[in-house]
Amino acid sequence: MDLIVQKFGGTSVADTTCIQRVAGRIVRETQRGRSVVVVVSAQGHTTDQLLQKAREITPRPPQRELDMLLATGEQMSVSLLAMAVDALGVPVISLTGAQGGIFTDEHHTKAKIKAIRTERIAQELRNGRVVIVAGFQGVSSEQDITTLGRGGSDTTAVALAASLGASVCEIYTDVEGVYTADPRLEPRARKLLEVGYGEMLEMASLGALVLQPRAVEVAAAYGVPIHVRSSFSEAEGTWVKEDASMEKEILVTGVTADRDCAKIVLVDVPDDTSVLHQVFSRLASVGVNVDMIVQTSKQQHTTDLTFTVTEDEVEQALDVIKDIPSAEDAAIVYDIDVAKVSIVGAGMMSNPGVAASMFGCLNEANIPIQLVSTSEIKVSCLIPRNRVRDAVQACHRQFQLDQLGTSE
Amino acid sequence: MDLIVQKFGGTSVADTTCIQRVAGRIVRETQRGRSVVVVVSAQGHTTDQLLQKAREITPRPPQRELDMLLATGEQMSVSLLAMAVDALGVPVISLTGAQGGIFTDEHHTKAKIKAIRTERIAQELRNGRVVIVAGFQGVSSEQDITTLGRGGSDTTAVALAASLGASVCEIYTDVEGVYTADPRLEPRARKLLEVGYGEMLEMASLGALVLQPRAVEVAAAYGVPIHVRSSFSEAEGTWVKEDASMEKEILVTGVTADRDCAKIVLVDVPDDTSVLHQVFSRLASVGVNVDMIVQTSKQQHTTDLTFTVTEDEVEQALDVIKDIPSAEDAAIVYDIDVAKVSIVGAGMMSNPGVAASMFGCLNEANIPIQLVSTSEIKVSCLIPRNRVRDAVQACHRQFQLDQLGTSE
Repeated sequence: MDLIVQKFGGTSVADTTCIQRVAGRIVRETQRGRSVVVVVSAQGHTTDQLLQKAREITPRPPQRELDMLLATGEQMSVSLLAMAVDALGVPVISLTGAQGGIFTDEHHTKAKIKAIRTERIAQELRNGRVVIVAGFQGVSSEQDITTLGRGGSDTTAVALAASLGASVCEIYTDVEGVYTADPRLEPRARKLLEVGYGEMLEMASLGALVLQPRAVEVAAAYGVPIHVRSSFSEAEGTWVKEDASMEKEILVTGVTADRDCAKIVLVDVPDDTSVLHQVFSRLASVGVNVDMIVQTSKQQHTTDLTFTVTEDEVEQALDVIKDIPSAEDAAIVYDIDVAKVSIVGAGMMSNPGVAASMFGCLNEANIPIQLVSTSEIKVSCLIPRNRVRDAVQACHRQFQLDQLGTSE
Repeated sequence: MDLIVQKFGGTSVADTTCIQRVAGRIVRETQRGRSVVVVVSAQGHTTDQLLQKAREITPRPPQRELDMLLATGEQMSVSLLAMAVDALGVPVISLTGAQGGIFTDEHHTKAKIKAIRTERIAQELRNGRVVIVAGFQGVSSEQDITTLGRGGSDTTAVALAASLGASVCEIYTDVEGVYTADPRLEPRARKLLEVGYGEMLEMASLGALVLQPRAVEVAAAYGVPIHVRSSFSEAEGTWVKEDASMEKEILVTGVTADRDCAKIVLVDVPDDTSVLHQVFSRLASVGVNVDMIVQTSKQQHTTDLTFTVTEDEVEQALDVIKDIPSAEDAAIVYDIDVAKVSIVGAGMMSNPGVAASMFGCLNEANIPIQLVSTSEIKVSCLIPRNRVRDAVQACHRQFQLDQLGTSE
């Protein structure tokens, strides 16, 4: 029998009405003769409320206990959703991450899935039940509850789809699909019909919040087709799959913006690779993710080292690099009024002019470029945060993205 | 090392301040060199709020899913309490019922503990940690989450104390201990220093809400001493243990009142034991607990059958008995304006005059007695609900209970 995995985010199950709407959608799918596995996030702002409770107790809760607390959010939503499906007369069962066989490593609050033991889920499906699995959570080999960190529920859904051999993993969200740009920044943004895994991975990493990069990685590795669509309509959304052939000849598929950036500069550090090594190994040791890195020689023997991190990791980053022995004379400055605007497209691989074209349109719009980084299928520029909208619109126009996809 | 089990109810962990107070108490116990296992209920009204959420979805949620939902309440409180203990610098770990090895049968919403596998808890204690276990919940052999029903957390605590060989099970509550009567009904009520298991069992079953009867049964079976005390003070509470010797010569130890009663009467049923059997086997089959039962012959061949159930089970009871074949002519009437007042005391076993003395004092106070039931150590009378206070005070005076225990 055809098996699909459906994932519903927190806004899709925010209240009783939403939960009942989602239940209706699940039931319609079963009426089409499909087996359905559902993955759900915590309702609305539950996770934030739980974090708030923890912070009232102590500013630094142990991460194991934080996972224990946060995991209750999804346990609530799966049981409530199961009640709603049951009320429509369809056999159903809810499972925690542990019951669903989601085994992870022991890195609390950011665990990675190691294996999925699908025996229980397979058994429940054979019994003709809809199976609703708590997203975002798993269990360690010590039977401790873990959470998967940001984007965890998407990852749970795609990993389950891969393990169960589902024909599609549907990711329901509060937008209609993946757009050429954030419609709040660029009203002329268009919904894409298809995106390749590679492009989606870049777009997701660069700030397109509809789908989490970790989930895209898993989907790409196992060839799971993802259908990103709205939980509030029946419209087709965006298919994320192998090499979206339709758009191969298109240079740029989308523009993304990420405001969660901060720039840190070490001014006048010794021009010595050991300093570079020390800075980034210290950052890595405390788990700070560094994004863009640029080193520029100004004068003999000294250099400026510039890199970006997410805004909430600035403090931690400054803390671990402030006393590097051979760089104690370096001044450290930082700037959070920055943002990263990127263009993404599998087609740019063989077209060297794309980056130049982006710099040109930003320059024309008088938007200063502070840092640049590129990969085979994207170009990113760090710009002043208050110019994000202008930059997105300039790029959208430059690469004629309003001609792509569909306006629906 | 001396091991104690401490159980804190929902009001004891209702908010951040309460949780921190409880954490302080736990830490003081560890400073005395004791190993501590803690059992916690859900915070304040969490369970009611979760039930409300479920009812918004559907009036009849599947019981398995209800357990899945309700179990999140204790999972939240154990993790928050663990954070608070950790913040005081004491090693600690929280465990769900499943992680704590609380194995139950499969009767969702009213599961019974079958076995406790204490390996994990013992391991954590050996590692020098305070272990905080979620009360009220367990896991079935199918790995499904179960809840123990009313009084579940007390039962978890006593069962853990028995399994771990704890020297005492401390039950923290919002009152100072077990009283000769509910102080809200009888201001002259006195706190008892000791109560025997048998007396406590009767008092708990009869409406003294400080301790749940199931927990007392387990304590009696395994000889676990219980210390019922206030979480808001350091005062000694009431010890519940084998044969409270001090009070052996006392006829009556306490007066209890239970307003959660309803009387159902089948008028003019055939005087035939098969009817009796059918009524009570039907009630049993849907899980309705019948308390007092009286059958009175009025005229030849017919009889009135009277019994009591809890108020919330009236509807269900009426439903299953309404179409008993040989009793279709019987009228069924019910009355919820009733309450049960009882006197309890191990000393009354050898004193036949105690029941008469109770009837006498109620009669003197012009309180009509509708039904009577007795055991070796208690006498219960069903009376009009609006006379509860008068009845409790009359009995308290009659048996001179204000001379017992301590007024603290």
